[in-house]
This record gives sequence, C-alpha cells and structure tokens, in this order.
Amino acid sequence: MSDLRRDGFLGGRLQLWQPARGYRSGADAVMLAAACRAAPGDSVLELGCGAGVASLCLAARVPGLRCTGLERQADYAALALRNAQECGLPLDVLTGDLSDPPAGLRGRGFDHVIMNPPYFLGGTPAPDAGRATARTEETPLDDWLDAGLRRLNPKGWLTVIQRADRLDRIIAALQGRAGAIAILPIAARQGREAGRVIVAARKGARAPLRLLAPFVMHDAPRHDVDREDLTPAAQAVLRDGLPITI
Amino acid sequence: MSDLRRDGFLGGRLQLWQPARGYRSGADAVMLAAACRAAPGDSVLELGCGAGVASLCLAARVPGLRCTGLERQADYAALALRNAQECGLPLDVLTGDLSDPPAGLRGRGFDHVIMNPPYFLGGTPAPDAGRATARTEETPLDDWLDAGLRRLNPKGWLTVIQRADRLDRIIAALQGRAGAIAILPIAARQGREAGRVIVAARKGARAPLRLLAPFVMHDAPRHDVDREDLTPAAQAVLRDGLPITI
Repeated sequence: MSDLRRDGFLGGRLQLWQPARGYRSGADAVMLAAACRAAPGDSVLELGCGAGVASLCLAARVPGLRCTGLERQADYAALALRNAQECGLPLDVLTGDLSDPPAGLRGRGFDHVIMNPPYFLGGTPAPDAGRATARTEETPLDDWLDAGLRRLNPKGWLTVIQRADRLDRIIAALQGRAGAIAILPIAARQGREAGRVIVAARKGARAPLRLLAPFVMHDAPRHDVDREDLTPAAQAVLRDGLPITI
Repeated sequence: MSDLRRDGFLGGRLQLWQPARGYRSGADAVMLAAACRAAPGDSVLELGCGAGVASLCLAARVPGLRCTGLERQADYAALALRNAQECGLPLDVLTGDLSDPPAGLRGRGFDHVIMNPPYFLGGTPAPDAGRATARTEETPLDDWLDAGLRRLNPKGWLTVIQRADRLDRIIAALQGRAGAIAILPIAARQGREAGRVIVAARKGARAPLRLLAPFVMHDAPRHDVDREDLTPAAQAVLRDGLPITI
C-alpha cells in the first residue's frame, strides 16, 4: 500500500487517505454513516472499518461520538488512524478479526454497530491483495452480524449496508435477537430493483418491521456520463452530509 | 351468511358473491392473483380461499389452469364453489384446515400455491364471526407458509400477500426451503413505506433474492374522496386484469 491518494467526502469537507490502487470506500460508506442514528455522546463500533470512511463521516456529522473501528488488515487500520488524526475526529482503531476480537474489544458494549461487509463471495480473484480481502468474503455474513449483535448494548442499534440480494440472510440472522427492523432499499434509479439495502435493527426490541420507500440515487432514466444526475436526496447525503431518516 | 351481494372485479368482468357483512376480499386478492406466474395447464392451490376471489381472478386471466381452494369455513367454501360455477371457471373447493389437510389434498403437489393469510393477530374482537375468522390469525403465519411449501411440487412457486411488517417472518420461514425470493413492496402512495408485500419464492431453488421497486396504488399525494386516483399500474391490474411481473 505504498501509493496513497486523498479522496474528498461530504462535498470535500472530509479529505481521507485511501490506497490509490486496491479497495476504496465510496458512496456506500457515506450512506451507511448517514443512516446510523447515533446521538451525541453515543459509542459506535464499526466492524471492518477499512480506511475509516464510514466512521469518520459519522463522526463529522454527529459531535461527541466515541467511535471505534475494528480492521483486520493492519495497513488499512493504520490509514484509518492517520485519517482520524489528520481530521481531528474521535476514532480509535483496533487491529484484529471480528471472529476473534482483540483484547481491547472483549466485554465492551456499544450503542451502535455499523458495518459494510464484503459484497463478493470468496474465491473471486482480484489483482490487489488488500482489495481482494476487503471486497471478498472470507468471514461469512452471518458471522459479521453475529459479532455486531454481540457487541451491542441492550437496545443498541445495528446498521448494515449490503447487497440487496442478501437481505434474506440478514433478516434470518436477526430473528429472535433484534427487532424494529427497518429496511431501506437503495435503487440506482426510480423503478429499478434495489441494488443495495441498508438494514437497521435494535437489539432485543420487539417493534414491527418497516419496509421503507426506496432511496433513489440517480435522476436520469439511464446513465449519462455528460451530466451529473444525483437525486436531491443523494446530494443531500453525499455532498451535504445530512442524515438518512430510517 | 344469509345476506349476500355481488361484487365486481377486474373492471366488472368477474361478478362474485360475497357476504354483505363480514369478511370480503378486495384489492389484495386481485393483486395476489396478478402476481402468480401460473402458465396454462398449471395446477394451483389457494390456501384459505374464502369466496374464491383470488383463484377466480387468476383462472380468469390464465386459461387452462387447474385450481383448488382450501377453506376452513364451510359457508365461504360453498360460496367459492358457487362463484366458480356461475363464472364457468375451473375451481375445485375443499373444506378443511390447512394444519390438518383433508384427504383430497394429502399427497398432492401443485405447481403454485397462493395465499392471503389473515392480517391480524388472534384476539381482536370483530362483530361478525365469519369476518373474525377470516381476518384474525388462529393459525400462525409460519404454519400457513409451511403448509404451502409442503404442497408445492419441486421448483413450484409460492406467492403470498401479507402485511409488510411481517416480511421478516416470511423470509425466515423460507430459509433453506425456497429460493429465488422476489419481494414486491406495495405502497399506498409514492414515497411511503410499504403497507403490504407480495413475496414469491421457488421451492428448492437457489437463485438470489430480489427486492423490487414498489408497486404504488394511488397517484395523489393524499387521499381525495372526490377523485379516482389509482395509478396506471394499479388500474392495469385491478380493472384490466393484467399480471404483475415479479
């Protein structure tokens, strides 16, 4: 990870180092941060924090958070810490595997756990090792969700962004352990199937599930490279750093 | 069930007897029928067929089906049979409980199972006994789904319409038994949470889940008694009898 570049987030207000090649967080991390309903003073754990984009977007929006990131790849963890320090935002970073949490995490509970688990099943070759590890699933999705639920305080909120086609795995993993499930479909364009979902759920709660109206990313009916076509809702989140109400 | 009235469905093409008081099927039954992907010659079982509205809407759209309805309440079962005969549509009706299927159903497999299980938990008082039985849940939703899956042929399709807040129960019940899950949110108006969902799933399949764009029922931003405001999509289904592609 010798080549780094700074990517701008939240309309450029947040400048974060990411590897020039390899896995780089993007809109999904910003959406995840926007959907977490953390309030000032809350504790937040991000599983698989990478270079810290989601946690730092969240810390930039909500003052007074106590954020912790867990990252298996030491070079990404170091980058997350560097990003936090350069931005002056409260993110503590632990290196370790979520299926075998480091000592600094054991026994601790958090008000919120956020995660953006890998989207691809293991075995897909990728030219960059770090990118491959970040994007492909060595730890099954169920283990991510289980680890997240374990780290939550009672009535704490889990927020996850994931491919829409894995909604069934997410729902099944939450059964009997979390309620007040809110599903936000994320569609590239109006009238399209959801490509992503954000799922929020409250540990130990019993409130009924809600299936929300989709969050639509682009205005134009199809991709047009010649013009910017983010919807006003997507601009509000990605550029202005506003929360998503779910 | 002495007072009966005829309700028009599919733009009046289907005139079906229903109790004047008590539980009457409406748009949800028509939507369920529209979402079932039965092809000519297929066998279809409806669990809890009531007066037969969903099965008869389906039989009216797809020629050559072999439809069977199971209904616990004998007076509704008789009404379903009468409706089928008067419309000249192929619906066989069995009286019995889905958790203890009658002899005529045991050992039989179907290409499709459709169902619109009760929306309310048991215990809600209702002035009419038939309506109370049809609308309140004495048989848990899990038992409906289990019975439906049991009656399906391998690779047969289950199609269910239900309150959106019970999507988690539906998804959990399908885990490991059906795949190719398609979730169609049904929203009263654009931008609203889903009030209903239609879920289709294929027994023994492994294809990934799809979360579809919502089906929106009404055009106006709020209820307006002075004007008809069904969306073109809803009109196509409810009046013109067209299928819903899911």
